[in-house]
Amino acid sequence: MRAIVFDGLLAFHSDAPEPILPPQTGHEQFVIVDVLMAGICETDLQLCKGYMGFRGTLGHEFVGIARTGRLAGQRVVGEINCACHQCEMCRQGNTSHCPHRTVIGILNHDGAFADRLVVPDRNLHALPEHVTNVQAVFVEPLAAACRIPEQLSVQGDERVTVLGDGRLGNLCAQVMRHHGCHVTVFGKHEFKLKILQEMGISACLRSNSPANRTADIVIDCTGSPTGLEDAIRMVRPCGTIVLKTTVAAAQTMHMAPLVIDEIRVVGSRCGPFSEAIRLLSAGSVTVDTLVSASYPLEDAETAFQHAIRKDALKVLFEVRR
Amino acid sequence: MRAIVFDGLLAFHSDAPEPILPPQTGHEQFVIVDVLMAGICETDLQLCKGYMGFRGTLGHEFVGIARTGRLAGQRVVGEINCACHQCEMCRQGNTSHCPHRTVIGILNHDGAFADRLVVPDRNLHALPEHVTNVQAVFVEPLAAACRIPEQLSVQGDERVTVLGDGRLGNLCAQVMRHHGCHVTVFGKHEFKLKILQEMGISACLRSNSPANRTADIVIDCTGSPTGLEDAIRMVRPCGTIVLKTTVAAAQTMHMAPLVIDEIRVVGSRCGPFSEAIRLLSAGSVTVDTLVSASYPLEDAETAFQHAIRKDALKVLFEVRR
Repeated sequence: MRAIVFDGLLAFHSDAPEPILPPQTGHEQFVIVDVLMAGICETDLQLCKGYMGFRGTLGHEFVGIARTGRLAGQRVVGEINCACHQCEMCRQGNTSHCPHRTVIGILNHDGAFADRLVVPDRNLHALPEHVTNVQAVFVEPLAAACRIPEQLSVQGDERVTVLGDGRLGNLCAQVMRHHGCHVTVFGKHEFKLKILQEMGISACLRSNSPANRTADIVIDCTGSPTGLEDAIRMVRPCGTIVLKTTVAAAQTMHMAPLVIDEIRVVGSRCGPFSEAIRLLSAGSVTVDTLVSASYPLEDAETAFQHAIRKDALKVLFEVRR
Repeated sequence: MRAIVFDGLLAFHSDAPEPILPPQTGHEQFVIVDVLMAGICETDLQLCKGYMGFRGTLGHEFVGIARTGRLAGQRVVGEINCACHQCEMCRQGNTSHCPHRTVIGILNHDGAFADRLVVPDRNLHALPEHVTNVQAVFVEPLAAACRIPEQLSVQGDERVTVLGDGRLGNLCAQVMRHHGCHVTVFGKHEFKLKILQEMGISACLRSNSPANRTADIVIDCTGSPTGLEDAIRMVRPCGTIVLKTTVAAAQTMHMAPLVIDEIRVVGSRCGPFSEAIRLLSAGSVTVDTLVSASYPLEDAETAFQHAIRKDALKVLFEVRR
């Protein structure tokens, strides 16, 4: 089959081996999913720089058709953490933190930039008919944005500052606005800020941002080593900073303000797919304007080059058969 | 009067000017307190290295006799944050984060290593008769330890790791144990670990600490630039790190684990005096074994030299008249 493989270098393979279903056990069933569409995420770009030491087929944002299992024949999206469901962490319901987990396209599990991939049956969610394939590709990053109100007890009138006007920053801004917060996004790209403004979200150039420590919540979606320090300058005493993007490099900064101002820093990763599907299905979150381009798998290199461009938002792979 | 003043260098002054009461206003009354005893805190040692740029009389852990006001003639301790009580932060009840505050012995407010100091009347707490002066000096740091259960919703069966076997580490361990947590302290000093063990608290040499990421809560009381990174190695996914000590220097570290493991980092500073007095009064926290020595104000230099010794715990000033 076709697949986009990273083995130190990124390459399209026309003859990648077909995925093999692991032996079915009592507690876990696996399903082959025929990929329809997949999206390039910032994490994919980081993986290509060596993050996590990943080797294999990339891709963790996808929509496809389940071949077998509970949802056989249906259009599905899949949660990316494949847990053991047996350890203490899993038994506490915290499967996305299972220490034995694989992560689709990120950690010891081949991903979705391919004709087919293997997904645990229980990770799959069926899609409402009116949610398009393009929208479905956003379920995974939108779920990550939905993780924030799941972690914080959002009252609904908080002053929220989002740092970063990229894909994830946009989705976080939309989710927090949906929860009633007063959201302002600071970014570097006029074009991306305009998309936010057209959604009715306050969005300004980062250079105009005030270091006035008034935000109740600052969400760092910059993917930059200076994001946290910027966030500290903007959050109010006793406020909350959410770290949404991983930064592979080490950061040098002063931690004393966290203590003096009793700031809370919350790391935030994967979130609830069901909530993301609900928001997309209800039209509460808009994603269609976030697509920059769509490529066939064969154009892997072009697609990745596009995705790293400063003006790019979501770059998709459309898997034609 | 006598006072220990830091003006770039630390010195005992035999003829320091008497404190002057600010004009009494409708919303604030000030009181002169005759100091009986005061303690040297790690923050005092940091201030002498230039932290906060403080200039003036040091000392913020103290017990004394109020000359006037609500508690005239009584033995009192005093909260250190002197707020404006008029700004938005104060009106929200968050006076310890008032942006206009002075902080006794730390920020624009002369401290307690002196015969007398000025304290806002409302900051004062009367002491039960059976709480000794030595115990009373520990009210301020013990209140800081009590801030932790005030910030976190402690269930009472958490696995708590305290990093640092010094004064604050010891008090945090005792407070968390009092709340029903399973506490282990990691430190560098056999002598200080022994004091904890004699209190029935599990305490081990830092070099024996496991990087096994099992603690529900890790409290960093090391005052070291590597404290946070050590804490990350010990806290479980979705666990909480409490930063209790300020570090003046910049820290270089990887933040990605905070995101991947969804760790929460909580800065923690000043806490409830009433709770600290209650714990001391009830004998729920032991502080008498934490005193290393007591000096007159005249021996400022000797006392500070003693306080920075690795084997030192609390060094006191006894203000004789």
